[in-house]
Amino acid sequence: MENQQFKDCIDACVACALACSQCATACLKEENVGHLTMCIQLDLECAAMCRSAAELMSLRSSFSAHLCRVCADACNACADECERHAAMGMDHCRKCAEACRTCAKACEEMATPV
Amino acid sequence: MENQQFKDCIDACVACALACSQCATACLKEENVGHLTMCIQLDLECAAMCRSAAELMSLRSSFSAHLCRVCADACNACADECERHAAMGMDHCRKCAEACRTCAKACEEMATPV
Amino acid sequence: MENQQFKDCIDACVACALACSQCATACLKEENVGHLTMCIQLDLECAAMCRSAAELMSLRSSFSAHLCRVCADACNACADECERHAAMGMDHCRKCAEACRTCAKACEEMATPV
Amino acid sequence: MENQQFKDCIDACVACALACSQCATACLKEENVGHLTMCIQLDLECAAMCRSAAELMSLRSSFSAHLCRVCADACNACADECERHAAMGMDHCRKCAEACRTCAKACEEMATPV
Repeated sequence: MENQQFKDCIDACVACALACSQCATACLKEENVGHLTMCIQLDLECAAMCRSAAELMSLRSSFSAHLCRVCADACNACADECERHAAMGMDHCRKCAEACRTCAKACEEMATPV
Repeated sequence: MENQQFKDCIDACVACALACSQCATACLKEENVGHLTMCIQLDLECAAMCRSAAELMSLRSSFSAHLCRVCADACNACADECERHAAMGMDHCRKCAEACRTCAKACEEMATPV
Repeated sequence: MENQQFKDCIDACVACALACSQCATACLKEENVGHLTMCIQLDLECAAMCRSAAELMSLRSSFSAHLCRVCADACNACADECERHAAMGMDHCRKCAEACRTCAKACEEMATPV
Repeated sequence: MENQQFKDCIDACVACALACSQCATACLKEENVGHLTMCIQLDLECAAMCRSAAELMSLRSSFSAHLCRVCADACNACADECERHAAMGMDHCRKCAEACRTCAKACEEMATPV
């Protein structure tokens, strides 16, 4: 695997973890937090997964590809949920969904290197 | 600092991080989640701090004492909030508050070694 | 999945992460550190993976099983390497190998729940 | 504290954690690893501290300032060590030292907001 691919995927994971944490914290301040609990839960799971994938890749671990496979699934699950709320005007969810999709794509490429 | 002191404080931090994560996840499933948002927020902060303190101590870092000082404050803040909800019957908050107080005490001892 | 199974696997992951970090730090103090570089590298990867698995499980994440599959592989790889050095008298490697095997077993059971 | 200041400091912490992990992994592949053990140890401590500071800041935690105070010290300690090896031609140490100094500066500003 190329160094550049590692770097791009690490950057995507770091950006996604950040967006997920900020989305969770912002959701907790929304009036209708009762509708956002699944979003917060998936934010937390996705953030933890992305931080982990970034750490393993920064160690150039041979387990990176397998971990990125799981991380891509977590990112897509979080993006699915965030997009529902983004459609209703939640800006932090829109930003989070974008970061999740970008990260899922980068992780999928890492998971199946050509 | 003694190995046993490190071990006890690591154990307390690990137990507290776990209790905080479980409390956050349980809070998200409560009907009255709107009253628990500060609790969830502090759970997340305290869990992150405790995981970090445990990691630094497991590396026998010389920064452990300073980090434990900050960690104790996070634990006490989370305990203060959880105790309010524990008084109203939230069992996960009660368990979390207990883990936070135990961890705060262990971290305070680590922060000022005799 | 049962709560007890989650709890047992979290405990095994936490203990393994701790043993791996302590093994890495102890290896760095050995005179023959030049022979232990792969051990340190795998310690770091395995510790990161175990911390991540513990965090996801403490959030009761639905991705836990998939992550535990990857974590079991990391644990077994670390155990394989540590056992070589344990056979030559490295006590921290022996303890680490034991924690890794225990964790691999717990993660494998989590990965394929019956 | 301004959002931009949080963002800049998070970015510096993330970049520093990455540089530290990569420096540690690269050090482990050097022939003269015996001279680099303190560097690896501080890399690991600094990486853990920076990941933690980034996570707490991404949660907009009120403990961010105190944690950044400790993080700045870890960054400067790691930079001091890496600079010694950078002077002898270790490129990963030079990059790591630069990331550590940048992060220390950002963390110091976060630690004492004006």
